[in-house]
Amino acid sequence: MTIFITFENLKSEFIRILANSGFTDSKADQCAEIFAVNSLEGVYSHGVNRFPRFVMNVKKGYVKPDAVPALIKSLGSLEQWNGNLGPGPLNALFATERAMELASQYGVGLVALGNTNHWMRGGTYGWKAARKGFSFLGWTNTEANMPAWGAKDVRLGNNPLVFALPYGNEAVVLDFAMSQFSYGKLESYQLEGKQLPFPGGFNNKGEITVIPAEIIETRRALPIGYWKGSGLSLLLDILATIVSGGLSTFEISKKETEYALSQVFIAISLENLSNHEHIETTVRNIIKNYKDSDPAESGTEIRFPGENVTKVRDDNKKNGIPVNRNVWERILAL
Amino acid sequence: MTIFITFENLKSEFIRILANSGFTDSKADQCAEIFAVNSLEGVYSHGVNRFPRFVMNVKKGYVKPDAVPALIKSLGSLEQWNGNLGPGPLNALFATERAMELASQYGVGLVALGNTNHWMRGGTYGWKAARKGFSFLGWTNTEANMPAWGAKDVRLGNNPLVFALPYGNEAVVLDFAMSQFSYGKLESYQLEGKQLPFPGGFNNKGEITVIPAEIIETRRALPIGYWKGSGLSLLLDILATIVSGGLSTFEISKKETEYALSQVFIAISLENLSNHEHIETTVRNIIKNYKDSDPAESGTEIRFPGENVTKVRDDNKKNGIPVNRNVWERILAL
Repeated sequence: MTIFITFENLKSEFIRILANSGFTDSKADQCAEIFAVNSLEGVYSHGVNRFPRFVMNVKKGYVKPDAVPALIKSLGSLEQWNGNLGPGPLNALFATERAMELASQYGVGLVALGNTNHWMRGGTYGWKAARKGFSFLGWTNTEANMPAWGAKDVRLGNNPLVFALPYGNEAVVLDFAMSQFSYGKLESYQLEGKQLPFPGGFNNKGEITVIPAEIIETRRALPIGYWKGSGLSLLLDILATIVSGGLSTFEISKKETEYALSQVFIAISLENLSNHEHIETTVRNIIKNYKDSDPAESGTEIRFPGENVTKVRDDNKKNGIPVNRNVWERILAL
Repeated sequence: MTIFITFENLKSEFIRILANSGFTDSKADQCAEIFAVNSLEGVYSHGVNRFPRFVMNVKKGYVKPDAVPALIKSLGSLEQWNGNLGPGPLNALFATERAMELASQYGVGLVALGNTNHWMRGGTYGWKAARKGFSFLGWTNTEANMPAWGAKDVRLGNNPLVFALPYGNEAVVLDFAMSQFSYGKLESYQLEGKQLPFPGGFNNKGEITVIPAEIIETRRALPIGYWKGSGLSLLLDILATIVSGGLSTFEISKKETEYALSQVFIAISLENLSNHEHIETTVRNIIKNYKDSDPAESGTEIRFPGENVTKVRDDNKKNGIPVNRNVWERILAL
């Protein structure tokens, strides 16, 4: 059953729990804000639904609430940081802000962050940078959860990749994993007794299937674009690993749970570019042309990545954030 | 009918033709080298097969053989350059080298290049940077050749994206377009009377199809990962356009042919990183684990992006480069 919780109520519960879990007041507030905004903006899987697991990982010592990133090496516009196993969202926010500082100084800034934790929703950092007037490009590796193209066993991460840029007061933000459907999504389709709208993996006969239960059984999720997403996952992992000096998907997957990840944050300054004053118009023109596409089904709207966030945010501000009652009760009991 | 031409013979024919088309000796050599290596390494579509069209675009004035990039603005590790409609491969090579210089100085270097031309094979620049010890990330926009997800008309480019990094004396190089299959590939399947191995687009009933002729008819090629590749294409176009100050897919598509493209080249210094001495081992370990995957069909090998290039290069060095006789006769007549 779904209940509706205000943003303020959700955030204050998160603050209470984090403050009781070793977070300073300021860090509890910052971290609670990220989980609450992720929920407000409709990314429940990496907001309210994920919060109990995050707190469990703090309690088990995988996520260290008082740890902060430490500079390993600066090459100028590229910096390597050790995340010291601090809270993933706070480390990622720090890295995004540091990449923006470097971009303000040098045009482009790259922060590579090893030994960090799950950043929850990659879009958080894209929105943050875009709202400040930067373009953003970032990615994380993960534990292995997808087979290489042509393989049966799970050796690649789904390694989410984020691209973002400002769009008026909002942003265009693309945040996507290398698997066509997450296991969370497969499980929702299964619960609803539905087939996937498109093939999402292989069944135990090695055939591509739209039946979520078959994929959950084989663990053979399909990479986006088949061999292309498989290759992209591999390259994102290697780059995050070697540029941060952190751990690869292969090494993370040997651990008892998913922690000590490697991430890359690239910010690009737009306000110092020669064409700065034309950028807003240029983006509007591209988006307008895109949205003017002839829809395959008449009456449907062609949406750009991140467009729907504004609507969901407004709805959830007005009506409250939809939360599963069991999840909410678990949170209240934390 | 296929004939076999040595690398030297191919390159010297290219040099002869380019020298007759307004290229200086040095530029004719450099440009011929790129087209010949692309062919040697098996990317015929953007090597020997594309060469006559490249020369035609020079003759028509879309590609200016004597033009060189001009610096518009330097922000430190980010530079904006005007390609002045010079030869795409030479401009892209210049931008790659400049991005590496910036990366040597600042850790990361980004060159945004507007008003340039088709770079042929994106992998060329990935291999170049990786061989010099850099990681590379680059992309180009194109004319519109793919519909947005949910749309019927063609408003997105297939905007190839390249990731590369050194791997011993070779490289891991991923070079992929945002459409699942290029029109060149669809036409090859059609000529051979074959179906696609996976869905590649929509038929005129709006159904996803594996029949190449149906996609060639509707021009509704499928983005990789459906909505994901569609979003990525849009973001790559916007970023290349605004960071270079050049033209977008929308604007390029209004022209009589595809020219004046926008591109981004990012190089990352590896040799100055704190973990530099461990990088080679780290990459070997990741690749080994990847290749040790359990293959879906026993006896098959799991290959990393770019792995096959070494074999094709060796074969073509030994046996000559396979060239369609008609293509070769057209080239000899240029």
